[in-house]
Amino acid sequence: MRKDGGGLIFLMISNEVAKKLKLPFLADMYAHIDDKYPVLKSLVPNDIPYDTKSSFSLYINHRDTFTGITDNDRSLTMKRFADLSKKIEHINDGISTNMFGKEFRSPGHVPICIAAKNLLNSRKGHTELVISMMKMANLAPVGSGCEIMGNDGKALIKPKAKEYAEKKGFVFLEGKEIVKAWKKWSK
Amino acid sequence: MRKDGGGLIFLMISNEVAKKLKLPFLADMYAHIDDKYPVLKSLVPNDIPYDTKSSFSLYINHRDTFTGITDNDRSLTMKRFADLSKKIEHINDGISTNMFGKEFRSPGHVPICIAAKNLLNSRKGHTELVISMMKMANLAPVGSGCEIMGNDGKALIKPKAKEYAEKKGFVFLEGKEIVKAWKKWSK
Repeated sequence: MRKDGGGLIFLMISNEVAKKLKLPFLADMYAHIDDKYPVLKSLVPNDIPYDTKSSFSLYINHRDTFTGITDNDRSLTMKRFADLSKKIEHINDGISTNMFGKEFRSPGHVPICIAAKNLLNSRKGHTELVISMMKMANLAPVGSGCEIMGNDGKALIKPKAKEYAEKKGFVFLEGKEIVKAWKKWSK
Repeated sequence: MRKDGGGLIFLMISNEVAKKLKLPFLADMYAHIDDKYPVLKSLVPNDIPYDTKSSFSLYINHRDTFTGITDNDRSLTMKRFADLSKKIEHINDGISTNMFGKEFRSPGHVPICIAAKNLLNSRKGHTELVISMMKMANLAPVGSGCEIMGNDGKALIKPKAKEYAEKKGFVFLEGKEIVKAWKKWSK
């Protein structure tokens, strides 16, 4: 992801996992504390061109990482977070939050994006696309991702992304295909 | 930075610029609001192996960016932030914060690290090393940086970083050299 993607390396989780770990959307948290920190009022993200709301939550590091940014460190943070989210499925909220804090710290280097509550029925961002796939596949609702950059300062264009997937033997999926499958599955 | 570095692409600013823009350290902000968001108590960063305190502040995007993560977008965010920090030098705090909010939003994709107040006299992280150099060179106290990753999942080792700098014609500096110059300069 770091070498061939080059974008943000991030975690995506379902709204249910976020609720259990009491993870807030940063934008909501900022709105609650902007009297104490008025700079948050100035910086309010009310003009995101592709969406009405940022899905960013906290940035975390696993406590066993050193700087948190090396490939080994980010990989550890993401793997252990996926393990945790499987473990807490049948555990109550209070204990889940404790387990979370025992293993992770924030600020850190791996951002968490939280999927909208009704997934693709309410938002069609990469977070919802990925978590919907996890649900359909009956897997833990956690994924990791990274945008692919082009050599022109912009995101890699679709034909080139397709070419890359073919070369690597990866499955190439478009958002609309996932949305279609989701509509059929969630009926 | 993205291709040859691979770490976090971040901004570094002096404590004075942060004060003027009312930018908090995230760890301080989290400590102030952890009654409302108890998960922040669980995730408290009290075990950073290389330091006593995280220097992370907010993550920002320039309002003219689209996703905020492409090379063009991150570059725009960083350049405009440097421009702003030059502009506000002789402007009061209230107007500075307004100017900041007019141009930037948070959450975003470019993290800001704030240097310790007495720079290398109080902390010797990359943020203090860079801002000290800016001060010594009589430049705006803003820099951008990125850790260089190796192919082994760890940070690039020093001899290889040196080799890279030589190949590229970059100046290779070690922390201790900057500390030495700083001690002499700040007498």
